Amino acid sequence: MFESPEKAAVSAVLSMLLEVSASPKPGNVDRDHDFHDLRYEHFLASASASFPVFVRIAQGKLGVGEGVFELVRTTSELHLADNVHFGAFLLLSPLVASLGDAGRARELVESTSWKDSIAVKRAFDLSKARVVDAHTMDLRGDEVEREIEEKGLSLVDWMRLAPEENFIAKEYVTGFRLSLTGKERIMEFYGETEDVNRAIVLCYLSFLSELEDPLIIAKRGRDVAVRVREMAGEALEVYQSTGNFAVFEELDLRVRGLGVNPGSVADLVISSIYLALAEGWRF
Amino acid sequence: MFESPEKAAVSAVLSMLLEVSASPKPGNVDRDHDFHDLRYEHFLASASASFPVFVRIAQGKLGVGEGVFELVRTTSELHLADNVHFGAFLLLSPLVASLGDAGRARELVESTSWKDSIAVKRAFDLSKARVVDAHTMDLRGDEVEREIEEKGLSLVDWMRLAPEENFIAKEYVTGFRLSLTGKERIMEFYGETEDVNRAIVLCYLSFLSELEDPLIIAKRGRDVAVRVREMAGEALEVYQSTGNFAVFEELDLRVRGLGVNPGSVADLVISSIYLALAEGWRF
Repeated sequence: MFESPEKAAVSAVLSMLLEVSASPKPGNVDRDHDFHDLRYEHFLASASASFPVFVRIAQGKLGVGEGVFELVRTTSELHLADNVHFGAFLLLSPLVASLGDAGRARELVESTSWKDSIAVKRAFDLSKARVVDAHTMDLRGDEVEREIEEKGLSLVDWMRLAPEENFIAKEYVTGFRLSLTGKERIMEFYGETEDVNRAIVLCYLSFLSELEDPLIIAKRGRDVAVRVREMAGEALEVYQSTGNFAVFEELDLRVRGLGVNPGSVADLVISSIYLALAEGWRF
Repeated sequence: MFESPEKAAVSAVLSMLLEVSASPKPGNVDRDHDFHDLRYEHFLASASASFPVFVRIAQGKLGVGEGVFELVRTTSELHLADNVHFGAFLLLSPLVASLGDAGRARELVESTSWKDSIAVKRAFDLSKARVVDAHTMDLRGDEVEREIEEKGLSLVDWMRLAPEENFIAKEYVTGFRLSLTGKERIMEFYGETEDVNRAIVLCYLSFLSELEDPLIIAKRGRDVAVRVREMAGEALEVYQSTGNFAVFEELDLRVRGLGVNPGSVADLVISSIYLALAEGWRF
């Protein structure tokens, strides 16, 4: 756990910076790979701008849902691209509110109200998150807000209704199970490689080889998502048997060739880094 | 000017992130170039950790000298490398205190006392800044603190005594003349290239082709510093006549080959970016 709200906020920002910098991160923006409308520097701007909001969340001045909304609103002001961190903000808001204690974060999301859900819904609308649609995220549509209010759906209720493949939403339900796994992996990979970039890339690849990214499912269907997962598994095997890190550059070209972006896996790496920092990981 | 202390602080952090990311930046750490003991990720950690201190400086809760000391102290906690931002913190502390108004920052440094100078001296000792020595920076030695106190040297008095080549110190004397020039250049280069990375790299190269870096003078003497300046000028000419950005990669190899690091020029780029953001530059 972090000893102060400021340290929790600093570490949330640093987690976003380390994740977006980690390279190569097949299919995602990293320090050496931009998309044509979305650049590495936009992620730097979004991460920087989030700091003051994280402080208020950590101080308990903003609730979990309101925190997600303010993060999206504030971080869009400093640059001209679409919001780039919606999924990460959803994961980080409760984890920052709990100063890095995943158990406490679970209690916080369980004690949210339907108002938090409305705030997250509005954050999503504001963020124009690029790939998610109603099927995978169940976030769009005018009737959603009415349903949230009428049924009194707290954030954890609402996320429970999300499709199983939406592993970001399910982190709220499982008590951040995947993020806690990712934390262990980062610290283990760092112990093995003593290389912060490689540790983060390997964490990313391990998730990519196990999970089908909901952003890929939404855009191109489950078959493509399965294909990406299998390709990641193969690349990871090559790396593990040869130590050839360049295999991930090749994988990046192949994933980009499919026109897909496993952005939710990247979000999961952010919360994993954050929990590692909360446990005292330094490099 | 920034409308709030938080925005000034966010922009100071973002300036450090954009500068260290800009690549290639011959002779310095950037997103694709580490030193063996100093990695890009250390700069990300240092920049993130500085945020809460910048907020306190912008709120007027820390004076200019005390601010530099707290920046150095706080940012060393989150990573294991030596302090990496001493020069940048010296430039940014008054510019953040003034919310990005260079004229007001000049007044602030002129109204400092010898206590600010002692704080900066101690920040320097703590930072173990790697290359600067007594000759160029006039910062080392046990007798320095006694002299500062006895003569009542304010920060601007003390910086006036620095050797002419120490252009970071001289920014306090001239009212941030070079940083203001750099600001104009970044906005102009961005207008020409519409590329945030190129705009920052070109600002860096323009300074590198005009100034002899005091860190190079301290480590290898004036002749080598002049050589680097000339090499930068030649590379810039090639770029201007051919548009070949890769010429800076070649320059990077040559500067590294000399074993020197124009770190003060990089610091100047940080304050230039910050002033551009204060003037409303967005990308």
